[in-house]
Amino acid sequence: MKHSITSYSAAMLAIGDELLSGKTKDKNIAYLAETLTQAGIDLKEVRIVSDDENAIINAVNELRKNFHYVFTSGGIGPTHDDITAQSIAKAFDLPYIFNPEAETILSNYYQAKKLPFNAARRRMARTPQGASLIENAISAAPGFKIDNVFVMAGVPNIFEAMLKALLPHLDKGTPFQSISINCPLGEGVISEPLAQIQIANPKTIIGSYPKFTENTKNAFSVELVIKSKDLVALQKARNEVEAMIEELQK
Amino acid sequence: MKHSITSYSAAMLAIGDELLSGKTKDKNIAYLAETLTQAGIDLKEVRIVSDDENAIINAVNELRKNFHYVFTSGGIGPTHDDITAQSIAKAFDLPYIFNPEAETILSNYYQAKKLPFNAARRRMARTPQGASLIENAISAAPGFKIDNVFVMAGVPNIFEAMLKALLPHLDKGTPFQSISINCPLGEGVISEPLAQIQIANPKTIIGSYPKFTENTKNAFSVELVIKSKDLVALQKARNEVEAMIEELQK
Repeated sequence: MKHSITSYSAAMLAIGDELLSGKTKDKNIAYLAETLTQAGIDLKEVRIVSDDENAIINAVNELRKNFHYVFTSGGIGPTHDDITAQSIAKAFDLPYIFNPEAETILSNYYQAKKLPFNAARRRMARTPQGASLIENAISAAPGFKIDNVFVMAGVPNIFEAMLKALLPHLDKGTPFQSISINCPLGEGVISEPLAQIQIANPKTIIGSYPKFTENTKNAFSVELVIKSKDLVALQKARNEVEAMIEELQK
Repeated sequence: MKHSITSYSAAMLAIGDELLSGKTKDKNIAYLAETLTQAGIDLKEVRIVSDDENAIINAVNELRKNFHYVFTSGGIGPTHDDITAQSIAKAFDLPYIFNPEAETILSNYYQAKKLPFNAARRRMARTPQGASLIENAISAAPGFKIDNVFVMAGVPNIFEAMLKALLPHLDKGTPFQSISINCPLGEGVISEPLAQIQIANPKTIIGSYPKFTENTKNAFSVELVIKSKDLVALQKARNEVEAMIEELQK
């Protein structure tokens, strides 16, 4: 029986001046990458843009056309520099409305905290018309989904909580399985036979990552990673790579 | 006397499957962001794509058209999965040649190490025709510059060394100066008056970054960052933000 392999592609759009000035080191890209890889959703592209309406609109419109899923981070708070939600509404050419469900969530949250549900806080209830909400288990203000675009907060623990909340609702594919092989030979030695193995194993993706540690400054040590969605193909490539390393060490 | 403000824009293209699978956490984006910010070159966009020829070609052709400088990282080693240099040559529609200067550098390097200068290692001497080299003080294999695109290694210490080598040759702009103000009030409180200050100070960019620490889970503490290339404008906005915080605490 042949096992069918399904693939879903994804892109991420991280939004925020602070990521481009070096002020803040992004933590969400690697978290999303790992989570999607495990879910069999292949992250194919990431973009980081500033808090600029045109930059957001252009990026989201290009990415949502090219990939099954688009995940955004950042710019959905209550201050003037948070312009993601309204930019996404413009990208979809949809009215930017007060989402009644989000208003109820936020109103209840601030009431429980005995804080006024003022205009700034109410602003976080705005979404493109027709969006469905993504739960925020940390600080209530929800993310939202519109078509294939998932709009989430940039603060890492909120981004993670939102991703956990939406993950069960995504169509998942066949995850890549990967094998990592430590190779004591440098890239300059293995390059040619490794390229032949890659050609002979088209269902696998073989990556070569030189290790530059204090002791191996010249990269005479390489991590070879073989990935495939097909376990038989993966094992075959692994055998060939291991045989290559043995042969070259003779 | 009016001080003239010059601006240069930049984009980064990080290339590598390992960045998109979560296997490797990118370190070059933040380093480039900080370095360029100090040099008065404004990093406006970052893209991460996989080791895929079309993805690289499309991204570099879009970015080099839209920004003064494009910096790439990754994919210039000797193995089959290193396809950046040839993809850049295709993007520019230029022959992909053995660069004589790079061949000399690599040949001397391997001779000194008493290692054969084999086909795999010689491959690292290939560049688009007309490229000039970027020195690699760590492991010899050079990066290169073609038009406004700077092609560098992905291994962080080599990326950093290459960036240091090319930085003196870049046209630099007026750096943003920034002031960070700790605000003990939450975003829901400051949002409206802060937006007014932003409108009244168009030569500045005011960012609001909630702090989620163990003790302030609900972000009743915000870091306000004011940026400007104009010191007088920066000081004026700072005074207004500080007055706002004082007023709101009364």
